[in-house]
Amino acid sequence: MLAGGTGGAKLARGMLDVVGADELVVIANTGDDVEVHGVHVSPDPDLVTWWLADLIDARGWGIEGDTWAVMDALEAAGRPVWFRLGDRDLAMCLVRTEELARGARLTDAHAEVVRGSGARARVLPMCDEPARTHVRSGGRWRPFQEFMIVDRAEPAVEGVEVRGIEAASPTPEVLEALDRADAIVIGPSNPVISIGPILSVPGLRAAIEAARAPVVAVSPFVDGRAVKGPTEAFCAWAGLPLGAGAPLAAYAGLLDGLVADEGPEDAAVPVLRTDTLMSSAESRRRVASITLEFARSLS
Amino acid sequence: MLAGGTGGAKLARGMLDVVGADELVVIANTGDDVEVHGVHVSPDPDLVTWWLADLIDARGWGIEGDTWAVMDALEAAGRPVWFRLGDRDLAMCLVRTEELARGARLTDAHAEVVRGSGARARVLPMCDEPARTHVRSGGRWRPFQEFMIVDRAEPAVEGVEVRGIEAASPTPEVLEALDRADAIVIGPSNPVISIGPILSVPGLRAAIEAARAPVVAVSPFVDGRAVKGPTEAFCAWAGLPLGAGAPLAAYAGLLDGLVADEGPEDAAVPVLRTDTLMSSAESRRRVASITLEFARSLS
Repeated sequence: MLAGGTGGAKLARGMLDVVGADELVVIANTGDDVEVHGVHVSPDPDLVTWWLADLIDARGWGIEGDTWAVMDALEAAGRPVWFRLGDRDLAMCLVRTEELARGARLTDAHAEVVRGSGARARVLPMCDEPARTHVRSGGRWRPFQEFMIVDRAEPAVEGVEVRGIEAASPTPEVLEALDRADAIVIGPSNPVISIGPILSVPGLRAAIEAARAPVVAVSPFVDGRAVKGPTEAFCAWAGLPLGAGAPLAAYAGLLDGLVADEGPEDAAVPVLRTDTLMSSAESRRRVASITLEFARSLS
Repeated sequence: MLAGGTGGAKLARGMLDVVGADELVVIANTGDDVEVHGVHVSPDPDLVTWWLADLIDARGWGIEGDTWAVMDALEAAGRPVWFRLGDRDLAMCLVRTEELARGARLTDAHAEVVRGSGARARVLPMCDEPARTHVRSGGRWRPFQEFMIVDRAEPAVEGVEVRGIEAASPTPEVLEALDRADAIVIGPSNPVISIGPILSVPGLRAAIEAARAPVVAVSPFVDGRAVKGPTEAFCAWAGLPLGAGAPLAAYAGLLDGLVADEGPEDAAVPVLRTDTLMSSAESRRRVASITLEFARSLS
């Protein structure tokens, strides 16, 4: 699976039930990574990991039952705390940061986070090199997290770029996973800022094209709207239609099929129409299962 | 003041009462610094800072009322937690680590910690360069904190070296403080592993010698024994006698006077004999005050 934030993470959790930890590999977007409070935070890989470890909290981005002692102390010390990390969340970022400081690749550092969280399936950063999504709005470029949190993703999007991506390359683990996959599933994440950075790692798209497995995307739209986050604004900037047309256009040439709750009759690839809302463990399993069956039918 | 751990920190707190925050500058040992859990910990500068900010806890090394959420999470994740940091303590280490990652000097990074803690007097790292104390015991070298915590400082000391010290130099702030001082007080800290690294920063001893201020040490021994920590074992390794003879020998050629509870009649410099135990705010003030009066009498 390719995954960004919540949608992809939910489908990954469903996949875990369907195929088991040994068969699931998630390639996660690291364009949202940020260094803050002295630690390296990987929001998308962590979100996927907390979902796979059944640690995800009700807000949908932190760890269940987390506390805020360190953030409170930083705030009391007069430090900027626009990016808030719970204590357990921070502990996992310390694990990553310590491994990186020791010279570990991001792939191995995140593997330690996965181990520490109790998740069993593999979660692979899209690349080991720093490649950071920046957003232009109001005439200036900002790192992605600042646009999302400080600006609350409210200004109109005028540009998106993943800085450093040209020097990145797919890791051996990513290439092996794609090569050995029985199905490659693009999760219902934002095609522009979640899946886009993954596909723009030089050589990664070619590796998907070269893989023997069918490639199926699950649309991030339900009833023509994005389930969560700023997907619509980014699609508008990228000239993508809302609804099933977005993944069809964004992944044109790459897909063998699309899973969506609606879709054009004249799509270039087969569209499996089904309810894609994943609001329960049961529905996550169902969407995962039906997506894999669909992929199998296309291979 | 030159200070290492608890003894020096207690005297610094007394000095703060006597001379005020604008007049007190503490030069602290960074030979004990350690990178652990992904953060840069400066045990001695922090200890002094917590004392000056009235944050020191009953154990004598952490922050009063601190909690342990992050350490508990690291332990649950299977990480080694031989070096335990409370959540507030960790927050201050994150401040330092973030500043260093931004390219700040250790001096400026620790100044942010001082500000964040609410302490007002200046606490200066002895140098900005990494210079780390290592201890040889049982035939092998270990970083100082591992010897102290993992080995509980129990094996016989066979060697001490401060790795990297040859490439260090006194900071402009340290040189200015020494040059402008009315008195230079060597705190009652371990002469070998607390004050020793400070004096071995190339050029720092010469700057003390060149300063116009009298140099007075306060002995770390009370009734011929070290008040706290492994001072005796390190003095034994260094060939220093226990008691007032230790600072007299360790700082030979540098001192204008010594404050101690006892001392040889034939000491090379004047010895002010007084009760040096600092178990209360009142006694800390008294020792600070009497030390400064003694220094003034020698200038």
